[in-house]
Amino acid sequence: MPDTTKQLNIAMIGSGSIARAHSNAFHQVAHFFEIPYSLNLKVVCGRNQSKLEAFARLWGWAETATDWENVVARKDIDVVDIAVPNALHAPIALAAARAGKMLFCEKPLALSLAEAQTMAAAARDVRNLVWFNYRRVPAVAFAKQLIDEGRLGQAYHYRAYYFNQSGADPTKGQTWRYRRGEAGSGAIGDLLSHSVDMAIYLNGEIAELSAMKHTFIPGRDVDDAVIVMARFVNGSLGSFEASRFGVGRRNGNGFEMYAAKGSLGFDLEDMNRLRFYDASDLASLQADRNILVTGPGHPYSTNFWKPGHLVGYEHTFIATLGDFLQNLAKGEPFHPNFEDAVKTQAVLEAVEASAEANNWVKLTARNRTDFGNLP
Amino acid sequence: MPDTTKQLNIAMIGSGSIARAHSNAFHQVAHFFEIPYSLNLKVVCGRNQSKLEAFARLWGWAETATDWENVVARKDIDVVDIAVPNALHAPIALAAARAGKMLFCEKPLALSLAEAQTMAAAARDVRNLVWFNYRRVPAVAFAKQLIDEGRLGQAYHYRAYYFNQSGADPTKGQTWRYRRGEAGSGAIGDLLSHSVDMAIYLNGEIAELSAMKHTFIPGRDVDDAVIVMARFVNGSLGSFEASRFGVGRRNGNGFEMYAAKGSLGFDLEDMNRLRFYDASDLASLQADRNILVTGPGHPYSTNFWKPGHLVGYEHTFIATLGDFLQNLAKGEPFHPNFEDAVKTQAVLEAVEASAEANNWVKLTARNRTDFGNLP
Amino acid sequence: MPDTTKQLNIAMIGSGSIARAHSNAFHQVAHFFEIPYSLNLKVVCGRNQSKLEAFARLWGWAETATDWENVVARKDIDVVDIAVPNALHAPIALAAARAGKMLFCEKPLALSLAEAQTMAAAARDVRNLVWFNYRRVPAVAFAKQLIDEGRLGQAYHYRAYYFNQSGADPTKGQTWRYRRGEAGSGAIGDLLSHSVDMAIYLNGEIAELSAMKHTFIPGRDVDDAVIVMARFVNGSLGSFEASRFGVGRRNGNGFEMYAAKGSLGFDLEDMNRLRFYDASDLASLQADRNILVTGPGHPYSTNFWKPGHLVGYEHTFIATLGDFLQNLAKGEPFHPNFEDAVKTQAVLEAVEASAEANNWVKLTARNRTDFGNLP
Amino acid sequence: MPDTTKQLNIAMIGSGSIARAHSNAFHQVAHFFEIPYSLNLKVVCGRNQSKLEAFARLWGWAETATDWENVVARKDIDVVDIAVPNALHAPIALAAARAGKMLFCEKPLALSLAEAQTMAAAARDVRNLVWFNYRRVPAVAFAKQLIDEGRLGQAYHYRAYYFNQSGADPTKGQTWRYRRGEAGSGAIGDLLSHSVDMAIYLNGEIAELSAMKHTFIPGRDVDDAVIVMARFVNGSLGSFEASRFGVGRRNGNGFEMYAAKGSLGFDLEDMNRLRFYDASDLASLQADRNILVTGPGHPYSTNFWKPGHLVGYEHTFIATLGDFLQNLAKGEPFHPNFEDAVKTQAVLEAVEASAEANNWVKLTARNRTDFGNLP
Repeated sequence: MPDTTKQLNIAMIGSGSIARAHSNAFHQVAHFFEIPYSLNLKVVCGRNQSKLEAFARLWGWAETATDWENVVARKDIDVVDIAVPNALHAPIALAAARAGKMLFCEKPLALSLAEAQTMAAAARDVRNLVWFNYRRVPAVAFAKQLIDEGRLGQAYHYRAYYFNQSGADPTKGQTWRYRRGEAGSGAIGDLLSHSVDMAIYLNGEIAELSAMKHTFIPGRDVDDAVIVMARFVNGSLGSFEASRFGVGRRNGNGFEMYAAKGSLGFDLEDMNRLRFYDASDLASLQADRNILVTGPGHPYSTNFWKPGHLVGYEHTFIATLGDFLQNLAKGEPFHPNFEDAVKTQAVLEAVEASAEANNWVKLTARNRTDFGNLP
Repeated sequence: MPDTTKQLNIAMIGSGSIARAHSNAFHQVAHFFEIPYSLNLKVVCGRNQSKLEAFARLWGWAETATDWENVVARKDIDVVDIAVPNALHAPIALAAARAGKMLFCEKPLALSLAEAQTMAAAARDVRNLVWFNYRRVPAVAFAKQLIDEGRLGQAYHYRAYYFNQSGADPTKGQTWRYRRGEAGSGAIGDLLSHSVDMAIYLNGEIAELSAMKHTFIPGRDVDDAVIVMARFVNGSLGSFEASRFGVGRRNGNGFEMYAAKGSLGFDLEDMNRLRFYDASDLASLQADRNILVTGPGHPYSTNFWKPGHLVGYEHTFIATLGDFLQNLAKGEPFHPNFEDAVKTQAVLEAVEASAEANNWVKLTARNRTDFGNLP
Repeated sequence: MPDTTKQLNIAMIGSGSIARAHSNAFHQVAHFFEIPYSLNLKVVCGRNQSKLEAFARLWGWAETATDWENVVARKDIDVVDIAVPNALHAPIALAAARAGKMLFCEKPLALSLAEAQTMAAAARDVRNLVWFNYRRVPAVAFAKQLIDEGRLGQAYHYRAYYFNQSGADPTKGQTWRYRRGEAGSGAIGDLLSHSVDMAIYLNGEIAELSAMKHTFIPGRDVDDAVIVMARFVNGSLGSFEASRFGVGRRNGNGFEMYAAKGSLGFDLEDMNRLRFYDASDLASLQADRNILVTGPGHPYSTNFWKPGHLVGYEHTFIATLGDFLQNLAKGEPFHPNFEDAVKTQAVLEAVEASAEANNWVKLTARNRTDFGNLP
Repeated sequence: MPDTTKQLNIAMIGSGSIARAHSNAFHQVAHFFEIPYSLNLKVVCGRNQSKLEAFARLWGWAETATDWENVVARKDIDVVDIAVPNALHAPIALAAARAGKMLFCEKPLALSLAEAQTMAAAARDVRNLVWFNYRRVPAVAFAKQLIDEGRLGQAYHYRAYYFNQSGADPTKGQTWRYRRGEAGSGAIGDLLSHSVDMAIYLNGEIAELSAMKHTFIPGRDVDDAVIVMARFVNGSLGSFEASRFGVGRRNGNGFEMYAAKGSLGFDLEDMNRLRFYDASDLASLQADRNILVTGPGHPYSTNFWKPGHLVGYEHTFIATLGDFLQNLAKGEPFHPNFEDAVKTQAVLEAVEASAEANNWVKLTARNRTDFGNLP
């Protein structure tokens, strides 16, 4: 059906480990999702020319480039994918948006709420995506489905955590992720941002919060750990904890939800599983169900392998991209986009503000969602 | 209500570790079960006088004795509880039965099927009990309830295992449990007997089997490990494995059952839990439920503590005794009794025969259940 | 050894479900702990005479009484055990202390910090105990041992939670536990108090905290849920969450600890297990160990049953009492006592204050520990 | 490095679900493994022309064909990959071997031992591979590494199971997998073959065995379930159970190993985990470690993603192919190859023979490994 297949030319800015996951998704998406697009890996842009060439050869990028400003201005580019340190998200996104490109951007969207709002305003007229890829873990998407079906009922508690041990070795911490100028924050932007995006996805927006943060290693200028108490707009209580000092956890991104009709639990280290307690079961049979979310009836189970055949980390990127492209084809909205990421950024900024002032911070509709009047 | 409470005078033969569990049950049963009996711990019988006295003082036995033949003949004894090495079960039980005593006996009932049949015949007119205590793990009793309610449907597979590491240290093995003359067998009588009793309880009798056994330590005259393949009378397939060389397992007594409408799983090392998969659930919600079997609606949950408050090893003895005494009061049958234990012994004997001849052995109705014409 | 055994006459005030667990412990302690005391269950005191008599008969209390003031003044009483609603703890304890009795008191110790301080001051010259029984879960005591041995190193995060679903049914909530006058608070005193005692036990005192609380059911005058962020004196970050709206959890009292050399995890619903991650293992073998804390080498494993043979809820009371009596015999201090409970009460009061004022509260050495100058 | 990259032209026979997993591996292998080959997906061969073309378009096969005999004879083909029902493995493999092609073949290799031996003899001079892909689950490869390092010591028990519920719906069973002529057997070839290959890989060859099999649905001419007892050459006892009636299990392929120095456990439904008990740990710390086998130090962890980032089903095919190609480049042997699969086939045939004759069957060195004198 070549007549119905549109070519999409992609430029990716960045060639680090996350760029590897993106490249893989570009390669794999058409194998698992029916999409009327052919993705051309046109150009990958980075700084180290020899590493860049090896990367391009490995992942099939047709060209390499070292000047992103040129790249995002090229006429033959349809999509700009931003996979660089956080401080570069805004300049690249703004330039690419001006050039009318579709935008894919790594998380967190920006260094600040104001920056995020500016980016979202600039991107208003282009299709865009933020790589909060964990929404597309099948088990997480299934949790969302159960909630939307009303199987949980009124929410009482939403608890999120994200622990890894990346910061616990004091001899490390020399990468951009530990420099405020490039990363904006530490565990907050790196880990908590995922938790907040997932919380908003599953449980809606946050009305107010109080937070604390801490840096265990003297001299580091970003936070190593953060704790947040919150009230959601839906009346439930929230707690969040994220840390790079979770010794023993490698990618411990999880949540629990307690609600009137049941409860849910998820942990990324066992990402094919969802725990679901259904309080409408016969009392003696009520228990956590340990659901293997690989079908039948589960999100993405018809895209990937047969029931009982697991998916992994990379499939979250593939599914994000697959949904985006299917939505694009149908002219439907895609989430999470820049506007969604503004909401998350508003929470992150409130977390920082609260942690610095040691007080509660309200999130108004304005700082949550309204960026319409910004320049 | 002293008028309705009958005194039961108990003699316990044995003062080892299992006698400790029995003594505890005698003390505790009235605290958790409504029974119209008052248990008098009259006399404990053993060989080592000084240890015996300490045991009697600790557990409140009124007297000590060293000659079991005198004890079981005493007029003032109502119940004889046999908690000694296997080889002594038969002589004590036969003498006590002749004296008209109620009989409680440790498992396995006997050294051989013939001996077990003789014991059951002798005990026909006295109330009796065999301490296959794991039937009364609440989670196991709940499994039975689910099966009896038809929630599992036609059975396909019943898989049992019992692993501990008791035999793996070659410097040990000096106790009676490693001497054929006193124990009759090794893992077969010690561990497999529990699995077989539980299998018959949950899945019915075995029609035929093939077995292998093995002794890892040269010179030991009992089996260290045994494996059995079987067909149950109900048409399901059975597999059993028991070993004292299960390094890392302390009390790994478990089963799995797969059936038309669901499946079950249990492990004694997490004894307050039952796994139950209900194939009648909505397909996308089908999963192992990890049921905490402490109520509401669970066996023994009104006897012991509140939901979420766990029970332990000793409660299986208390519940066995509680049920026995309640059945006694009502004139109802109690299981597992000597006749039940004969069925288990028939399986154990078939296992030994099969393992020695390397062939399949059929269990006829006769050797399974019929001991009526034996002397 | 009758000459070395001292009689201890006990009066228990209360005959509800917790009094049942206490009675059981009084009965069982000598079966599992070597103690030079004989406990006489002298008198149980309650309000409903007919229920009280049944209770006394069942648990072997020699007498019943309905006036606790008379009881605590009796010359023939050595120990007063307080197992009544919270509001009565103080008057009974103060009267019993004046009468020179040993004091056992249910948790939380008091309705307020001031009351707790007064009680601790009054009890200064009598041996005393507070039933924070979960310190004596073998797995919790083993966690403490690992920490004390230096196997965890510098603490980074201590996370506690206690969820049950006791409050989620709006038609319930008519018991004293939902009335501020009798209970003092809701989830805070009922659940969080256990978490705080355990946290202080394992990770030391709290320096400052910020809290929120919430009541889901309109009209209830106690909190249904509470969340706390904290800094411990040792520099680690703390988070606590307790709720009666944890639908699906029956007794979900757990903690996680992340530290420089490893991490720990515990949940009361699987109380025989401790998760321990040892970062000093070979990197490829580092993982959560799922330790079955039943011996060998584990706390209380020589008191109760053999390795692999589980203990349950009631053993935490038995072990608390066993340790108390052994410490008494040796003239050693026992913990947790009233002074320990004052520290916990100080935290609870700070939690309430913070939640009402929406700010951070510092816990000074004074309000943590100093009650010496109080009337 | 185009000069060092050799082109490998691949023909795949088959276009069903397993052909999908193979195609994916061909696409992905170079992204994760350094290999001096460029794989050209030259031709895919199937029967249904329209489905075939869609398949080819989706997975990038340059051509389609419907006559495999022509395909395997083509000069421009280097590798023939056999992904068709079992009955076609031999004719295709023999023809392709005659044509000097490298051979990749789905499991089980053949319908019978004799056929497998003939295939292995024919393939003696061509590089070959059998898709027993589960050897390359990182956790399984890590188990092998631990065993080879001597961390387990003398093996006592090797227990394998493979349960799914594919056969339990009586309205299904119309595919080739349920027809003896095309599949050769049921659960034996489909499921048990994986368990046997993995057992030989981890624990060595089997010396003797006794088996039973069963067909639950009348009229089916293949087995639905099989149980095997075995002795391994290394002296350990083996048990195997495989069934298509494991209601609730989707892909429950697991093993447990008990040995002198520890034990291991694995289940494919949690494929990123390995349980390892190290009996050389301090006694009180001995426990199952729940290892997340994603690095550091774990097999394939440098190939795929970062520690804590999971892999899935497809990665087992990618790793199999990656290892094959790296071995090919170095001139090193690859396993499992046709000779390895003959050993597995010998076990499967012994299982069938034993189950039909109801007796023990010895596996001689000849039928295990010796196919040298066959035509």
